[in-house]
Amino acid sequence: MANETRKAVVLLSGGIDSATTAAIARELGFELYALTFQYGQRHNIEVDAATNIAHVLQVKNHAFQLIDLRAFGGSALTASIAVPKAQNVSEISDSIPITYVPARNTIFLAFALAYAEVTGASEIFIGVNAMDYSGYPDCRPEYIDAFDHLARLATKAGVEGSTMKIRAPLIDLSKADIIRKGVSLGLDYSLTHSCYDPSPKGLACGCCDSCLYRRKGFDEAGVPDPTKYAP
Amino acid sequence: MANETRKAVVLLSGGIDSATTAAIARELGFELYALTFQYGQRHNIEVDAATNIAHVLQVKNHAFQLIDLRAFGGSALTASIAVPKAQNVSEISDSIPITYVPARNTIFLAFALAYAEVTGASEIFIGVNAMDYSGYPDCRPEYIDAFDHLARLATKAGVEGSTMKIRAPLIDLSKADIIRKGVSLGLDYSLTHSCYDPSPKGLACGCCDSCLYRRKGFDEAGVPDPTKYAP
Repeated sequence: MANETRKAVVLLSGGIDSATTAAIARELGFELYALTFQYGQRHNIEVDAATNIAHVLQVKNHAFQLIDLRAFGGSALTASIAVPKAQNVSEISDSIPITYVPARNTIFLAFALAYAEVTGASEIFIGVNAMDYSGYPDCRPEYIDAFDHLARLATKAGVEGSTMKIRAPLIDLSKADIIRKGVSLGLDYSLTHSCYDPSPKGLACGCCDSCLYRRKGFDEAGVPDPTKYAP
Repeated sequence: MANETRKAVVLLSGGIDSATTAAIARELGFELYALTFQYGQRHNIEVDAATNIAHVLQVKNHAFQLIDLRAFGGSALTASIAVPKAQNVSEISDSIPITYVPARNTIFLAFALAYAEVTGASEIFIGVNAMDYSGYPDCRPEYIDAFDHLARLATKAGVEGSTMKIRAPLIDLSKADIIRKGVSLGLDYSLTHSCYDPSPKGLACGCCDSCLYRRKGFDEAGVPDPTKYAP
């Protein structure tokens, strides 16, 4: 068993956080099984970004799940509510953002658990981050701990005594820390996509919450921002 | 608030357990939001059964989610492995059955959580039962407790102090107890479907694990079995 390659499922959305998480998992020596969701987004640019990142990180397999949260409604990312815009991060509301997708990380981790069980992966990597997006309940450390506990009870592997662990290596990092970490691992952030409301040609809007945190991150990290913004 | 109708999401597969669970939730006075999955089964008889049960229980809404666990493989219910057959319950293996679907209840409960959050439901009912199917890790009380804990951490409702509770009213009941309970609530079990391997016309095989537990349940409950079996 000592020389057997350890396998990990990595949730890969195509954004900075999940790409960095995947690069960290690869650096740790895991064979990667990437998992990307299409869930009623209004654009497929994120999925294309995830595909390119999976390719450069040489994942063993890249699985896709199409889920339709629109059947339940309730969020700007899945229903037809306007994405909120601002000029800088200080204008972003402190409450749970309208772009919150109900139970999203729980759904993502549940599928990741199934994928881990089938592939024999012992760990699941997720790029959640409690610093910037404190408004999302399912990005907090106590949430990740609760799912980690659940994962061992939920699976054949857990019952039979193998490991099944949820890892969130970015949980305490700022966006700037995350970008510095990715750069140190050679990650090309021009492959990533963050914007909630891109132009038809895929250019970032520069003023949704996600764009604002991304710009601030590159700025604070002292790394040139490779993002192509709409004029 | 005192007169406001309480809402519950009910996972409804079309089998005895979920139908009885839904009848219990209705008896408790909840407005029901049924949720049924189509997940790569080889037949849609279960979905038709769920639809009929939802109708007689007068659910407020019945949502469907199509999920494709076949992308991950690994189970007789979703891949092309033969369903095991036996003559009676004593022949069924004690180990985790081949019909185990990886992380199934975690995926189901994750979607139920999203649905509950969107509809404003405060409780989620699931018909898991630890007595007959002890081989499934995600049917144990400690698993349900772990998801109940997770549910409050995962959601806006939980964070903001509202309730979000997982209820598994059948967890300690035998199949016979469940059937007696359903009969006392006026539930028509001829609407339910249990067989893993029905004939093309929808008749039950009578010898898969699910049929064997069902037959034994009606027998022990002293209730005539309304199931139509293949000759």
